Amino acid sequence: MQKVDYIIQADYVLPMDDRLTVIHDGAVAVKGTNILEVGTSKEILNKYTSDSILRREESVVFPGLMNTHTHAAMVYFRGMADDLPLKEWLENHIWPAENKWLGPDFISDSVGLACLEMLKGGVTAYNDMYFYGDAAGKATKRMGMRAVLGVGILDFPSKSAGTIDEYFANAESFIKGWKGDSLITPCIAPHALYTCGPETLKRARHVADTYDIPIHIHLSETRWEVEEITNKYHMTPVEYLDSLGFLDKKVLAAHCVWLTDHEIQILAQRGVGVSHCIESNLKLASGIAPVVKMLNAGVKVTFGTDGAASNNDLNILSEMSTAAKLHKAVSGDPTALNAQTALLMATRWGAEVLGLGEVTGSLEKGKAADLIIVNLKKPHLTPIYNIYSHIVYSMRPSDIEMVMVDGKLVVNDGELLTADESEILSKAKNWSKKILEDCG
Amino acid sequence: MQKVDYIIQADYVLPMDDRLTVIHDGAVAVKGTNILEVGTSKEILNKYTSDSILRREESVVFPGLMNTHTHAAMVYFRGMADDLPLKEWLENHIWPAENKWLGPDFISDSVGLACLEMLKGGVTAYNDMYFYGDAAGKATKRMGMRAVLGVGILDFPSKSAGTIDEYFANAESFIKGWKGDSLITPCIAPHALYTCGPETLKRARHVADTYDIPIHIHLSETRWEVEEITNKYHMTPVEYLDSLGFLDKKVLAAHCVWLTDHEIQILAQRGVGVSHCIESNLKLASGIAPVVKMLNAGVKVTFGTDGAASNNDLNILSEMSTAAKLHKAVSGDPTALNAQTALLMATRWGAEVLGLGEVTGSLEKGKAADLIIVNLKKPHLTPIYNIYSHIVYSMRPSDIEMVMVDGKLVVNDGELLTADESEILSKAKNWSKKILEDCG
Repeated sequence: MQKVDYIIQADYVLPMDDRLTVIHDGAVAVKGTNILEVGTSKEILNKYTSDSILRREESVVFPGLMNTHTHAAMVYFRGMADDLPLKEWLENHIWPAENKWLGPDFISDSVGLACLEMLKGGVTAYNDMYFYGDAAGKATKRMGMRAVLGVGILDFPSKSAGTIDEYFANAESFIKGWKGDSLITPCIAPHALYTCGPETLKRARHVADTYDIPIHIHLSETRWEVEEITNKYHMTPVEYLDSLGFLDKKVLAAHCVWLTDHEIQILAQRGVGVSHCIESNLKLASGIAPVVKMLNAGVKVTFGTDGAASNNDLNILSEMSTAAKLHKAVSGDPTALNAQTALLMATRWGAEVLGLGEVTGSLEKGKAADLIIVNLKKPHLTPIYNIYSHIVYSMRPSDIEMVMVDGKLVVNDGELLTADESEILSKAKNWSKKILEDCG
Repeated sequence: MQKVDYIIQADYVLPMDDRLTVIHDGAVAVKGTNILEVGTSKEILNKYTSDSILRREESVVFPGLMNTHTHAAMVYFRGMADDLPLKEWLENHIWPAENKWLGPDFISDSVGLACLEMLKGGVTAYNDMYFYGDAAGKATKRMGMRAVLGVGILDFPSKSAGTIDEYFANAESFIKGWKGDSLITPCIAPHALYTCGPETLKRARHVADTYDIPIHIHLSETRWEVEEITNKYHMTPVEYLDSLGFLDKKVLAAHCVWLTDHEIQILAQRGVGVSHCIESNLKLASGIAPVVKMLNAGVKVTFGTDGAASNNDLNILSEMSTAAKLHKAVSGDPTALNAQTALLMATRWGAEVLGLGEVTGSLEKGKAADLIIVNLKKPHLTPIYNIYSHIVYSMRPSDIEMVMVDGKLVVNDGELLTADESEILSKAKNWSKKILEDCG
């Protein structure tokens, strides 16, 4: 009998392996940061022993959810300006607020709130594009969460940098400071094609190659953007990026709402990962991405919440549920995007498109123990005929009882263990009071 | 000082009156089944006293949510058959299960589970179409919930009746038995145009007039249905119903996915209420109803979950959120279906289309005390800039702490008071075990 740190038992264990195995009365053995073995309870309890056997009645264990596109700090602008045209929303509300308030303290506190919300919602890793990466990295690490963090790069000045060189200097310093960290992966995040010229894009690509890190970019979110780029470069956005040699499997492209079939082919051929942000795309009236077409072409589509100012939460269960239903109607095919595929997109594929496929995203020997236990003894999860259906179509964040990241329990009995929730909420209240006074 | 049964205080009280008033630090005085007065805490506490002052820190009070179309008992088939074509889903899974299992005991137990789920999700009234109305009525009343219940009528035999006359006899006996009940309103529910011929529809209309009760019908849910009816009667479904003299404000039409502009005009002119079941329509790939067009034409559109076998839950908060986001993208207008309108549709309009506009749906003097208190001290509801935004775009059933129906507390601290939740869940498990054994 080998002693391990945790044995986690549940009625259902879903490793999200290639065969989409469902282990009934299953267990996971965890030692240090890693998964040692996954199997039936009988198999695991015959080989391992632990002082911490986490056994939940009527529960399911599966890999932590991946939020592949967000701007975590924007939780502090949640609901500040809704039901507005995009231009008014950005120019009259979001940008002025950002220019006024952004800074390391704001980021540190707001990222704490975002991580709290995501961890309680079963998200164990997120991919971010924003500013003040050091503050975001420290706050995320303090909360015990995994993240890929990209410091945003723009061709015009913002509060965080005055020149393109300064943006890149900030980014490189952030990358050097965090490369090799166990939880935080630095990446490079040129904002979009309409805010970064070709030289900036190529330079960002060069940085990604130099440091062997992922690239995070907004792509074809709105019709306006596609027209703008097509008029300027006489190519569609994806064709244009491809002509710069920008695209390969290092690239995570967020949104991808307006794509031609040719562009979908390019994304598939280059192995570009896509973050589908359906709730944000709907709420800002950006449009509906051709997800079924992308999946059929072999593009790895995953789920992102976008920032909470345009969503208005960081709830991947809800993104998955909305997407799985919506794309049936959009494609006219009730068998499209089935529950198993949706959960694969939210877990293993999410990790893979972030370059974390070797580290997390499925419950397999040697991978980090990033997983969640969900309580199934709930009216809206009763009765049970198909566990995948319940996760995708009925489960809610409040059903999540336990969250483990890198072998450490960060949420237990639905409560955060790594920080004081009340304090995080108080800080948010204080910041919003200042922001509101300023608006008034 | 007048003594009342309850004084309910909250940071925000939203009466959902014509002016969409927001009362900061507000209160509601409740005596017996009714609301006596709504105002600021100061106003209410100056006039009333109570042994039960329900004061929640950081909370909002608003009218209970209305689920205007469901088949409550189908919670027992939740997730039984997903990701399937509609025909296969109905003919190979749902109908055989119904024919095998339906009966008063099944209905009584399953409706208990549905009411539990809805009450905990802030739904204080629902509109149902199914069979064995007596069992459904008793179960609903036992749970302390309000409902409009319609016994389904079909032109062909089912387990509950062998002939059209028997369907009508069942319906009339149910109507006579429940007419005048404080919580249960009987209605008549001819299933749809493709399952009820013109004589059946006219007869149902006659019953509605005779007893002065609402009519509940499925209408234009799928393209197939519209083609079928148009081919048969050489009119579109709404035109055909109108030609029968069927349509007026007594009628609640569920789905209304495929409508011409002319049909929308007819619905508006006749004052027909519509139940928009977006999650079911998406999941079954039925299509997306022209909600913004209907609203612009003056049709009262409300929210329904449909049955849990096609949704897969009875969560009106989620229907409201999905609809408010989706119709922005579908109409290309991010200002469409704003948060205030969405909450109005989910509350006051819901009551109005069910013929309960005088009884419930808003917090006004003399109306029944059907209301919910929601805890705002949650990460995903922090910070707060606009309370309507938070309710529509971020709120979850688990945020609901207290639910009152007809002046009685039915949920407190998130726990059901009117029945034993564990027992309801156990019963469901036992039924599903039998159903599964039968499938195997």
